[in-house]
Amino acid sequence: MDKRVSVYRREHFNAAHRLHNPAWDDAKNNIVFGKCNNPNYHGHNYEMEVKVTGVPAADTGFVIDLKFLSDIIKEEILEKLDHKNLNLDLPEFAKLNPTVENIVIVIYNILRSKIDTKMDLQVRLYETPRNFAEYPAE
Amino acid sequence: MDKRVSVYRREHFNAAHRLHNPAWDDAKNNIVFGKCNNPNYHGHNYEMEVKVTGVPAADTGFVIDLKFLSDIIKEEILEKLDHKNLNLDLPEFAKLNPTVENIVIVIYNILRSKIDTKMDLQVRLYETPRNFAEYPAE
Amino acid sequence: MDKRVSVYRREHFNAAHRLHNPAWDDAKNNIVFGKCNNPNYHGHNYEMEVKVTGVPAADTGFVIDLKFLSDIIKEEILEKLDHKNLNLDLPEFAKLNPTVENIVIVIYNILRSKIDTKMDLQVRLYETPRNFAEYPAE
Amino acid sequence: MDKRVSVYRREHFNAAHRLHNPAWDDAKNNIVFGKCNNPNYHGHNYEMEVKVTGVPAADTGFVIDLKFLSDIIKEEILEKLDHKNLNLDLPEFAKLNPTVENIVIVIYNILRSKIDTKMDLQVRLYETPRNFAEYPAE
Amino acid sequence: MDKRVSVYRREHFNAAHRLHNPAWDDAKNNIVFGKCNNPNYHGHNYEMEVKVTGVPAADTGFVIDLKFLSDIIKEEILEKLDHKNLNLDLPEFAKLNPTVENIVIVIYNILRSKIDTKMDLQVRLYETPRNFAEYPAE
Amino acid sequence: MDKRVSVYRREHFNAAHRLHNPAWDDAKNNIVFGKCNNPNYHGHNYEMEVKVTGVPAADTGFVIDLKFLSDIIKEEILEKLDHKNLNLDLPEFAKLNPTVENIVIVIYNILRSKIDTKMDLQVRLYETPRNFAEYPAE
Repeated sequence: MDKRVSVYRREHFNAAHRLHNPAWDDAKNNIVFGKCNNPNYHGHNYEMEVKVTGVPAADTGFVIDLKFLSDIIKEEILEKLDHKNLNLDLPEFAKLNPTVENIVIVIYNILRSKIDTKMDLQVRLYETPRNFAEYPAE
Repeated sequence: MDKRVSVYRREHFNAAHRLHNPAWDDAKNNIVFGKCNNPNYHGHNYEMEVKVTGVPAADTGFVIDLKFLSDIIKEEILEKLDHKNLNLDLPEFAKLNPTVENIVIVIYNILRSKIDTKMDLQVRLYETPRNFAEYPAE
Repeated sequence: MDKRVSVYRREHFNAAHRLHNPAWDDAKNNIVFGKCNNPNYHGHNYEMEVKVTGVPAADTGFVIDLKFLSDIIKEEILEKLDHKNLNLDLPEFAKLNPTVENIVIVIYNILRSKIDTKMDLQVRLYETPRNFAEYPAE
Repeated sequence: MDKRVSVYRREHFNAAHRLHNPAWDDAKNNIVFGKCNNPNYHGHNYEMEVKVTGVPAADTGFVIDLKFLSDIIKEEILEKLDHKNLNLDLPEFAKLNPTVENIVIVIYNILRSKIDTKMDLQVRLYETPRNFAEYPAE
Repeated sequence: MDKRVSVYRREHFNAAHRLHNPAWDDAKNNIVFGKCNNPNYHGHNYEMEVKVTGVPAADTGFVIDLKFLSDIIKEEILEKLDHKNLNLDLPEFAKLNPTVENIVIVIYNILRSKIDTKMDLQVRLYETPRNFAEYPAE
Repeated sequence: MDKRVSVYRREHFNAAHRLHNPAWDDAKNNIVFGKCNNPNYHGHNYEMEVKVTGVPAADTGFVIDLKFLSDIIKEEILEKLDHKNLNLDLPEFAKLNPTVENIVIVIYNILRSKIDTKMDLQVRLYETPRNFAEYPAE
């Protein structure tokens, strides 16, 4: 049996967003998204947990160097999302509603391309301490 | 592959309870349950995390509207359990010992009947920050 | 000696903002405020702790009913600030930079007018878990 | 100037209680205390922070040995309050409403008699993460 | 279907360690492990979550008595690791690098031998709130 | 009245230490400091909160730029203490026992010399979430 271990790195970013479907009129957007539809945006302290699963290397004892993982997250995710307006500043959300579900998929897809496919990857994103999402689902 | 995402909503309630098996005498109850058997009850700030897994809808980006999920939890769970004595005020625990395991099963069963079966459901219940339970087990 | 006790109520709101001084040009704003100056805004999960100090009433044991205090905060503060853009949606910040220092003063002044002056008041505001402010200073 | 330092020890206990004034009828109790008046009690995970202020001793570097402080709190407070019903099991609350304000005063008075008066003492008590009290007020 | 529930117990210990591979020279150790390689050690407040999965017993409602689980963790893990230097005081790490991955495997193996094999076991270990590991991986 | 506001910045570092008085023999050190006297050291994730009190500047709305405060803490404190052995690597503790009381005084004295004396300063240091100290005492 291989000794597969999951390691996690937690990082945070602050961003503005609004929930909005441009195919709907304002009344429907307001009914569906409520105060999250505020045209002037609101924002969150997003906390993300990135989980990488693999076998620890014999010489280092690392599944992945968590400092290296932290650097990847900073370069690929925080550089793009931190202190940004998700709707206006990110092409990914030009037509995609930045719900916590869609943001976590976008983050996963970026990181998936940067981490060796021998390792499994999962991302959890906290929009608030009481609302969060995880992708892919177990 | 469908993009299954898990979303979570965290809610809390405060309740009194005691651990007790009426089929046993006081001495045995005291040995098995210790101070949790205090006849006058004790209590906890329970924190629950409700996890719903499904595919985000194309028009909303929601697996389930977390506001709607929060409302269901408030109506079906908090209304029944918050500021209550689990042993005395809830028929579910008239004959069932309100351990964290049994409480989380009761909560799951109530919520399962209210959430579309296309979606998977799991509940985690914190009795204290150091003691908690999850149902169904993964 | 009267038995003065402090009671605290914690509430949260989510808002967008940017730091900006309209008297300065973009270059200077960028140097002083860095990424907090992003023209499209960013946002936070603000957590506030409202501290009220007084003598508990003999008949209730309350300095102030924390449910009542929570209702005041919801009506006077959350209704105005939650899911809003502080720069655009609040007249208070039309000319005042919404730093955590200035936001906590604005919140204090609103609440001070609603709480009996026999009681002392202090507000702490967390912009992130690592950056926060308190007014008035002790 | 002497180098006065404050040290803090945090401990927790779980208890049942209800808010009730026996001088009032049920209707008035219900209006004033709401669901906290449930006759069958509810409960909380109480967290307490005990703050002791004094000058660190030259030979130990301790204001007070935090292990010793923890032992005092366990013997004098947790032994009495943990896994108890505050209204029924504690003579202190036979006629005193166990609000967070009154509980924190009771805890302070017990600890004050056990800690050298050269040192200042203050107690903070969390009934929930969002409702707490501190005595004596600063 | 059997009602399998997971229960969790959280405990903590404080320990010193350094990351080091004795097969490498100092320069390579420094490149790979950076400041974690400090020859004089550094340390952490480790938090561990032990997850036990099984069917609650009909008479107690317990998967496993969490007080009993806590006692096992104290005797088998905390007694060995708390307030220790992992590299110097533990034979397990005489030749094994005490990364969070390797520590969590060591803890799991000790506990696995003490808990009935009818029950599944998993351990999560936090080295900091932002770096943690879980074994076995799901 | 001037509008004095306190702002806080929270930072963390990981360090090894032991409690020991070289003027005492091993037996006495062991009695007084218990497992904290382990000759091979143990360690902690220290969390520090630096509080700066002053009047917000009219043009920035800052008491002190929290980014600048964070940079000072990183340069003056984290650079010296993070991933270090406090007893062996820091001249300040060559003869001074690194209790949480003495560490917080050392940190305060370093920072006090770097921050404009128009502003008041206080430091809180968490050795664990349950043991912490604050200097100067209020």
